[in-house]
Amino acid sequence: MSSTPSQPPTSQANWELDRVVAELRAVREKWRESQQRARDAGGRELPSRETLGRIVEALRGVMFPMRLGPSDLRQQSEDFYVGFTLDSALNALLGQVRLELRHAGRQSPAPDQALEARAVTIVRDFAATLPSIRALLDTDVEAAFRGDPAARSVDEVLLCYPGIVAIINHRIAHELYLRELPLLARIVAELAHAETGIDIHPGARIGHSFFIDHGTGVVIGETAVIGDRVRIYQAVTLGAKRFEQDETGALQKGQPRHPVVEDDVVIYAGATILGRITIGKDSTIGGNVWVTRSVKPGSHVSQASSRSQTPD
Amino acid sequence: MSSTPSQPPTSQANWELDRVVAELRAVREKWRESQQRARDAGGRELPSRETLGRIVEALRGVMFPMRLGPSDLRQQSEDFYVGFTLDSALNALLGQVRLELRHAGRQSPAPDQALEARAVTIVRDFAATLPSIRALLDTDVEAAFRGDPAARSVDEVLLCYPGIVAIINHRIAHELYLRELPLLARIVAELAHAETGIDIHPGARIGHSFFIDHGTGVVIGETAVIGDRVRIYQAVTLGAKRFEQDETGALQKGQPRHPVVEDDVVIYAGATILGRITIGKDSTIGGNVWVTRSVKPGSHVSQASSRSQTPD
Amino acid sequence: MSSTPSQPPTSQANWELDRVVAELRAVREKWRESQQRARDAGGRELPSRETLGRIVEALRGVMFPMRLGPSDLRQQSEDFYVGFTLDSALNALLGQVRLELRHAGRQSPAPDQALEARAVTIVRDFAATLPSIRALLDTDVEAAFRGDPAARSVDEVLLCYPGIVAIINHRIAHELYLRELPLLARIVAELAHAETGIDIHPGARIGHSFFIDHGTGVVIGETAVIGDRVRIYQAVTLGAKRFEQDETGALQKGQPRHPVVEDDVVIYAGATILGRITIGKDSTIGGNVWVTRSVKPGSHVSQASSRSQTPD
Amino acid sequence: MSSTPSQPPTSQANWELDRVVAELRAVREKWRESQQRARDAGGRELPSRETLGRIVEALRGVMFPMRLGPSDLRQQSEDFYVGFTLDSALNALLGQVRLELRHAGRQSPAPDQALEARAVTIVRDFAATLPSIRALLDTDVEAAFRGDPAARSVDEVLLCYPGIVAIINHRIAHELYLRELPLLARIVAELAHAETGIDIHPGARIGHSFFIDHGTGVVIGETAVIGDRVRIYQAVTLGAKRFEQDETGALQKGQPRHPVVEDDVVIYAGATILGRITIGKDSTIGGNVWVTRSVKPGSHVSQASSRSQTPD
Amino acid sequence: MSSTPSQPPTSQANWELDRVVAELRAVREKWRESQQRARDAGGRELPSRETLGRIVEALRGVMFPMRLGPSDLRQQSEDFYVGFTLDSALNALLGQVRLELRHAGRQSPAPDQALEARAVTIVRDFAATLPSIRALLDTDVEAAFRGDPAARSVDEVLLCYPGIVAIINHRIAHELYLRELPLLARIVAELAHAETGIDIHPGARIGHSFFIDHGTGVVIGETAVIGDRVRIYQAVTLGAKRFEQDETGALQKGQPRHPVVEDDVVIYAGATILGRITIGKDSTIGGNVWVTRSVKPGSHVSQASSRSQTPD
Amino acid sequence: MSSTPSQPPTSQANWELDRVVAELRAVREKWRESQQRARDAGGRELPSRETLGRIVEALRGVMFPMRLGPSDLRQQSEDFYVGFTLDSALNALLGQVRLELRHAGRQSPAPDQALEARAVTIVRDFAATLPSIRALLDTDVEAAFRGDPAARSVDEVLLCYPGIVAIINHRIAHELYLRELPLLARIVAELAHAETGIDIHPGARIGHSFFIDHGTGVVIGETAVIGDRVRIYQAVTLGAKRFEQDETGALQKGQPRHPVVEDDVVIYAGATILGRITIGKDSTIGGNVWVTRSVKPGSHVSQASSRSQTPD
Repeated sequence: MSSTPSQPPTSQANWELDRVVAELRAVREKWRESQQRARDAGGRELPSRETLGRIVEALRGVMFPMRLGPSDLRQQSEDFYVGFTLDSALNALLGQVRLELRHAGRQSPAPDQALEARAVTIVRDFAATLPSIRALLDTDVEAAFRGDPAARSVDEVLLCYPGIVAIINHRIAHELYLRELPLLARIVAELAHAETGIDIHPGARIGHSFFIDHGTGVVIGETAVIGDRVRIYQAVTLGAKRFEQDETGALQKGQPRHPVVEDDVVIYAGATILGRITIGKDSTIGGNVWVTRSVKPGSHVSQASSRSQTPD
Repeated sequence: MSSTPSQPPTSQANWELDRVVAELRAVREKWRESQQRARDAGGRELPSRETLGRIVEALRGVMFPMRLGPSDLRQQSEDFYVGFTLDSALNALLGQVRLELRHAGRQSPAPDQALEARAVTIVRDFAATLPSIRALLDTDVEAAFRGDPAARSVDEVLLCYPGIVAIINHRIAHELYLRELPLLARIVAELAHAETGIDIHPGARIGHSFFIDHGTGVVIGETAVIGDRVRIYQAVTLGAKRFEQDETGALQKGQPRHPVVEDDVVIYAGATILGRITIGKDSTIGGNVWVTRSVKPGSHVSQASSRSQTPD
Repeated sequence: MSSTPSQPPTSQANWELDRVVAELRAVREKWRESQQRARDAGGRELPSRETLGRIVEALRGVMFPMRLGPSDLRQQSEDFYVGFTLDSALNALLGQVRLELRHAGRQSPAPDQALEARAVTIVRDFAATLPSIRALLDTDVEAAFRGDPAARSVDEVLLCYPGIVAIINHRIAHELYLRELPLLARIVAELAHAETGIDIHPGARIGHSFFIDHGTGVVIGETAVIGDRVRIYQAVTLGAKRFEQDETGALQKGQPRHPVVEDDVVIYAGATILGRITIGKDSTIGGNVWVTRSVKPGSHVSQASSRSQTPD
Repeated sequence: MSSTPSQPPTSQANWELDRVVAELRAVREKWRESQQRARDAGGRELPSRETLGRIVEALRGVMFPMRLGPSDLRQQSEDFYVGFTLDSALNALLGQVRLELRHAGRQSPAPDQALEARAVTIVRDFAATLPSIRALLDTDVEAAFRGDPAARSVDEVLLCYPGIVAIINHRIAHELYLRELPLLARIVAELAHAETGIDIHPGARIGHSFFIDHGTGVVIGETAVIGDRVRIYQAVTLGAKRFEQDETGALQKGQPRHPVVEDDVVIYAGATILGRITIGKDSTIGGNVWVTRSVKPGSHVSQASSRSQTPD
Repeated sequence: MSSTPSQPPTSQANWELDRVVAELRAVREKWRESQQRARDAGGRELPSRETLGRIVEALRGVMFPMRLGPSDLRQQSEDFYVGFTLDSALNALLGQVRLELRHAGRQSPAPDQALEARAVTIVRDFAATLPSIRALLDTDVEAAFRGDPAARSVDEVLLCYPGIVAIINHRIAHELYLRELPLLARIVAELAHAETGIDIHPGARIGHSFFIDHGTGVVIGETAVIGDRVRIYQAVTLGAKRFEQDETGALQKGQPRHPVVEDDVVIYAGATILGRITIGKDSTIGGNVWVTRSVKPGSHVSQASSRSQTPD
Repeated sequence: MSSTPSQPPTSQANWELDRVVAELRAVREKWRESQQRARDAGGRELPSRETLGRIVEALRGVMFPMRLGPSDLRQQSEDFYVGFTLDSALNALLGQVRLELRHAGRQSPAPDQALEARAVTIVRDFAATLPSIRALLDTDVEAAFRGDPAARSVDEVLLCYPGIVAIINHRIAHELYLRELPLLARIVAELAHAETGIDIHPGARIGHSFFIDHGTGVVIGETAVIGDRVRIYQAVTLGAKRFEQDETGALQKGQPRHPVVEDDVVIYAGATILGRITIGKDSTIGGNVWVTRSVKPGSHVSQASSRSQTPD
């Protein structure tokens, strides 16, 4: 209950609202002209971060009902909960898919019915992949449990580990990305990025039993390819080698430009791996190292040691 | 609907509340004495993080109504929305400004009317800068779109990129900082830090077309100066060289102690740049490098390579 | 007020719900078999992240009522607020403690009354430590104020600094960890990790006057021991040296495997310190360095310089 | 913070969910058959009481911004608030109008475009009447102020009097009724009925300066016609004379069957006036009387007195 | 966004909290003594009006999913929604049942296990009656549609009519009443009373096809018995004849003391029917009449006419 | 999760917002002129129904903590809860008191400090009466329990009976009324009116052990005086005899014009008692009777019987 002021707080205050509003309109119009946007569009054309957040939360519950669903759920009603929540989430997703398809096609709009049919097909196909996504995520949870000496149970892993949040969102986002919904996919990825500090582009292809420990600062690029049973620590970058791209004058979008990491590789904290190189199977990349060339299978890469000035 | 327990859950439980409450009071009083705080103050004197969060969210909508405003907004009522939301946000900001001014002046309190007049002037001046802040932010959005090969549209940038969240908050926070509201400014900056992992001190001066990609772990210090068209990647630090300062015995506040980064510089992930040095125009600083001396215009700075132990 | 669609949005849509629900059930059952989970369990057995979030928020208000409590609180009613909020938070905590104890003992369940008595004792003992936690946190706030030239007041530190959020949660989580509630402790730690990017394992032992500046990317491991007046910057890792452990074939849980950092040490941004080594009193570890051997008291460790390609 | 039970509250509980769900489905299907409802319809076809509640609340603010709008509104931004809120409310109303039109026409569905055009026209016309509704309501507020010796200001009337809530909703509902939206109109009327106990059918035609005091139990029927400056007290019924209708065997809908009340009539508490009769101008109807025949202008109608048994 | 005051609003204010708190405690203790309440009870022992409100809302959705369930529900997922919501509502109800049973038995407490078994049985039996409750309610909806010339569809009836809200709650409350949960039953009844002004005691027995029109002010007593196809209008009382009971000196609880209304009776607005009398089949009771003796089948009871003073 | 439309729902819709907004402004300005309101006032000057609703809810909890306070409250922390909630409620009330005082004095404004001092005094005095209000309410609860054969416990009475809600609000509102805060008092009374259908003017003076059963439609006027142990049923009116007042041409405000009801009177449902008459001690007023003359102590007043047309 907020108390109320003892004198009219704003009676003298004059913000010159009309002027500021007019100037803000002028800036908007200038921007729209520069972007060649039509002025007479109706409502907002863009997907909603909040709505996607709720959809992802519902899908987490759908896939892990007793652990990420409502706290009063019982096994007796799991299927009821899953079916109801899934339908609601898919209908909401359908709305977001329509928005992205329409936005993407606004230069050459398709007939409404064609767009609607495509949206429905996308959502149905997406729904059909959820069981296999859950199965993949089970391998990730087990990998985390086996890979972290501090983990005491698989439940702790699912409830606590930011790496699990990131991979749940990624596996959802990747399916959206494959269905040509890059904007929805990106929003789902950024929701995990904001929560965990782990930034996985939805385009990245990641095998089973993937584990990111701690995770803050991890960046995985759009065209990265990661094998099975790979383990990554905080602040690892799987990025593009930008220098060369800068010199071409124009950025080439969509080209393979991020690393390929083969099965059973471990990459320690702070390592930076750049460009379309391959880290061979079973290799170990040490902390803080900088790798810009391919590494053979079974390699150990580590950093030169630091200088120590002892006080005598 | 939470279920209720099958037996009085806490009937035997005795937390010795009176004792704990008394001990907590004793600790508070000891602290207040050590800080020479008056004991008879009335209500809370400090600004509110939650209120500032709502103000910033409203200002985002005011500056980008169709993309960050309410989802049912239409262009026909944009100005209505902008004017109403702006007035509400400015009045709430006025309340927060009063709190900081009164808190700052609690050793030598000004007359209420003088403080009120100053608060109103500050908010009015702040409001007048919003159109130019929006114009600057448009250059940032375009820089992000041009600078990231994965970006598909300016809308994706504005909706998804954490670097955009960080720079929106920074440009607002910097205006508050310039108006001698360091606490409000800092709270606005920390709101972005918590959401994005990007930590820009509100004192930093940043030119137009600024782009931070990925962003987690970026730290930019209070007296840093950044030119136009600068691009920065995750985990970059523009910090102070602390060793020397430690040896003076006392920290000198407000002295220029962070880098100057000139126009068109690119700084790759993990680079650490410390002290009042200058990174010359058009330079490129490679990933993970450690720079403590000025760099001439057009320089390329990169790191020594790592040792690789291939399995022979 | 969301508008409603102009045609039945989903009438043709058929998500084949029954099939997807059945497949999701099959995956769950497979997982439960692999984990040897009983199928007939009743409700959810796991603690709740949301509930713990509310408990921690209440405890922050209990310990710092005028600064982190409700904004309309006055000193006259501080004790009333503290007593009421504390009782409510402890009762809620009791519920969570029961859940973890029951979950931990599900292989060899204790009688209900024994479990209840143990839960009550744990919560009462935890409550009794709150005054000393507050006293410790006061030293941390003062350390932050003295350690950061940009800090203008202790109030700014408490309201804004992510390092303070992290250490408040850690000191709470550590008490839970000591009382054999590793899951609750971990959830409290991860709440701070998500908000600040600072990842302190609740097992870490940390002395008074501890200060983490900026903080994003800091990782402190389970068996780390940190002395008094230690200062740490962003992206510092106090981790385990994993290579050796990998070669034993099985991870040994609970063994001392993280660094000991003695009193008055400063560790700059990005430094990585691995294994059960000791950083001697009064030492300074430079930014981005990699340390895997013990360092004598009073040492200064810094990194080799980078290569600069100046444009001749 | 709700505490959690000390033992699994529901583990033995088996609600036989599958059986109950199946039986409920059977009852639904029986009902749908009896109502000849199609089984394959998609989503819900009906308007929403909650959405209409929000629309009406917004329209109250639009018409009385400084008294029923947001508490932080200032006169400087009244028009901004009105324009923004009005647009949002009208768009939401458009959605509800579509739902009712489609529901009403589900036997002989119109083409989508025709329905859409009609919905848009209805909402635009409705919007155009809002200024005259506000002007009428001003006469009602003044009538209440003049008619109640306990009223101290017009502001008290607008903030407190249930009769004002009822007449605001009625004047909105009546406009919807006139535009062939009987379901939306009825919901708006029932929202006021639930809040005030005053039940005015949206079809009733009511002149200016209308005042209902206290109001609980007032019922005004669909075809009632009320003149200017009429005053009514609690528990007054302007109803239909049902006996005759019952004997026809079938209820004739839409026929004039409720009273006509001419200008300047006062009707005291509990009076019941039934059938298509006329209460002449300037008449006064006493409390609790029962009137089923027309009354000449200027009449005073009162009840026979009660029997008193005094104690000797 | 509420603005903050321009001066500490309450610094001089001293509410003498300690004194008022102590006096309030003294009054509570005096009350508890007078009621012979134990002072050392733990938590609250009473059911919660809010929780029961949510349970009833859920059960409305369970029984009428497409009309009173969530607005985005589709027929495809009706059963999922019904099963999930039902389980959640029953578990919450179980918690409330436990509270009432324990409260009722606090003088002679049963063993926990016996109480738990009884609570589970009650809830299971209650669940089993829901399909027949829905079937009964369908007859009520049809009766309302047939009985009101203003009703345009059964959907309008279910969405809008307060009499339907009242009878839904009554049929639920009556089942609780029959299972010796008078407190839960009464709360459910009062929820409808507050919303509709219709006050039906949960003990009343009511046949099928029951219709209350308008409804405000209707009161139906605990031992009333109502046949099939009965229609009642606003402000009708089916009450006890209190005079005789007063003279016995003590109120006899549970005795039949309210009217029996046989099949096909119509009772018009404001009629008062008192005592254990019988209104015979097919009778019509006119508006505002006062009946304290039994009425034969087929009777018409009406009121003496009022005196009219026409102006000459 | 609301789904999104399949086509831009409002692109053709043009509400002519500018015109409607301008016309609404014109109506507002006309009203303000007619009311001689200043046009340049700042923010809203009126108390808030929502805020008062929260204050009253808090005060109910303060007076009955274990029954109307938070559900997780325990007796151990009752005083903490009471003190904290009371302080918060009183501070919020102080804000509302300021608003009414300023509004009341807007023709001849007092200096801010005088108004503030008066507001603080009023709130302090109001707080001091709370213990005696609670004691009075205990007599009301007991009267309800004794007076209703259907009541099973005092807890049921406090949780369920609308008459208790009404008298709690009345006893609070009456204290505000006595302190010359008629607007706040009226809002508190109307909150109960909306919830219960019981309309007690805050000016009415009511003795101890007062019980209203069922209550819908009860109206008690501003100058009514009610003794101890009075019992009233639904739809009873204690009103003014308006005919005479109408003939004076102007309404005289504040004159005694409602009945005096002496101790131990019972008034049955639907009775109407009008004018400054006295109902003598121990009298019983029968249902539906109409009383406009004083009644001696010990009287029984009842209604003439109805005409019955039996079918033969």
